[in-house]
Amino acid sequence: MKRPLILVTNDDGYNAPGINHLIEFVKEIAEVVVVAPDSPQSGMGHAITIDSTLEVHRLDLDGAYKGLQAYSTSGTPADCVKLALHEILDRKPDLVVSGINHGANSSINVIYSGTMSAAIEAGVEGIPAIGFSLLDYSWGANFDACKSVIQTLVKEALDKGIPSGTVLNVNIPKTDGAAVKGMRVCRQAKANWKERFDKRVSPTGKEYYWLTGDFILLDEGEDTDIAALEAGYVSIVPTQFDLTAHHSMAHINSWKIY
Amino acid sequence: MKRPLILVTNDDGYNAPGINHLIEFVKEIAEVVVVAPDSPQSGMGHAITIDSTLEVHRLDLDGAYKGLQAYSTSGTPADCVKLALHEILDRKPDLVVSGINHGANSSINVIYSGTMSAAIEAGVEGIPAIGFSLLDYSWGANFDACKSVIQTLVKEALDKGIPSGTVLNVNIPKTDGAAVKGMRVCRQAKANWKERFDKRVSPTGKEYYWLTGDFILLDEGEDTDIAALEAGYVSIVPTQFDLTAHHSMAHINSWKIY
Repeated sequence: MKRPLILVTNDDGYNAPGINHLIEFVKEIAEVVVVAPDSPQSGMGHAITIDSTLEVHRLDLDGAYKGLQAYSTSGTPADCVKLALHEILDRKPDLVVSGINHGANSSINVIYSGTMSAAIEAGVEGIPAIGFSLLDYSWGANFDACKSVIQTLVKEALDKGIPSGTVLNVNIPKTDGAAVKGMRVCRQAKANWKERFDKRVSPTGKEYYWLTGDFILLDEGEDTDIAALEAGYVSIVPTQFDLTAHHSMAHINSWKIY
Repeated sequence: MKRPLILVTNDDGYNAPGINHLIEFVKEIAEVVVVAPDSPQSGMGHAITIDSTLEVHRLDLDGAYKGLQAYSTSGTPADCVKLALHEILDRKPDLVVSGINHGANSSINVIYSGTMSAAIEAGVEGIPAIGFSLLDYSWGANFDACKSVIQTLVKEALDKGIPSGTVLNVNIPKTDGAAVKGMRVCRQAKANWKERFDKRVSPTGKEYYWLTGDFILLDEGEDTDIAALEAGYVSIVPTQFDLTAHHSMAHINSWKIY
């Protein structure tokens, strides 16, 4: 029997520690091809490159990449998945994994997440996909606890499939190497960011802003991803790209629009 | 009574005909402030600018902009909304409108859409929001049929509100000036893009790609946005940013992950 094929990508760029760990973990299970951005793409949401050109370079690296078919691209995470599926790969992958992101993509962060946009792009094309994020922004983060989480979920996804129209948003608590308490299937917590713009003046007198802000949790539910993570569990949110708010249709149908 | 306040933005840039028409249509109804990108941002999805600076310039223009408080920014559509709400506006707007996009944002295009990302950003911050798109990519598109559609929906939204957690994705068929047949509240049609990458070589011998592709409708339903548009109706899809796929939780809970 042929080994399953896993496409690996991310949004922090091909040289991030997170993707290097992800490659190490999944190549014990499957044949791996990597197509990842050549530079960090955090906050890119579901951006794709139109009206501009894309470059692709074959990588010849040691470490996790040794002996692998791997490419960097000038595009976004969603571009990487499109390029891999339609230009680079000879066969359809059995699974696409994205990450391991350096930092959380729980709650409302999913909509800003390049990591998840790659997984969603794969899902749109009918391929099972999982985005992995670790709640540690540090480049020197400890990924030890991620190994069994990721290998367990990848094996289950390959074995049992992921329902059509759904991709998984997996966030892993920061444990500094200790094992996680377990995993929970959750809903996305309601939250937003309270933005602050740090206004500065350049040496030449030009005003500019840096975006900063605080995460505001608007959800006391115990069944959310935030609650699971705070309790030391991995959160798994089944995530869809059919955005229709069916529960709001009756209200809009009550408008005088006919 | 104070006139309602409407924030106008888009993803084609402040000088696009679409946003100029949108401003003309809504300033008959409300006080208007414009905060829009200084250049086209199509395909930006829900990108935000982190790890980079943002510039804001006050605009002093004639035509639709005459006498208005208006700004261009170096950011994405989502950045424009964040800047408006947290830095520029003195009071919370009653409604955010984005568009009129030059080209469709129906079906799966919603996830790639800068126009809709601005509306979604407003929705996340608890402000009613609508994204408008016209099914005509041309810069010289005829926006006549959009006027009554937009004014009707803006008045209804101000009067009756939009349910919390929901923003509206409104697409308007190309009629070349004739009235639309009516409006339908729809679900997002299932579809994807069959990508093709046009591979070329630069004068200096460097290979690069252009993304192109065909829209593939995977949905025969008569209740979708695509079906409404094909029949000559405006499609209104209530769109949510809680991406939880509740119907897939049981499947993932059946995995051996505990």
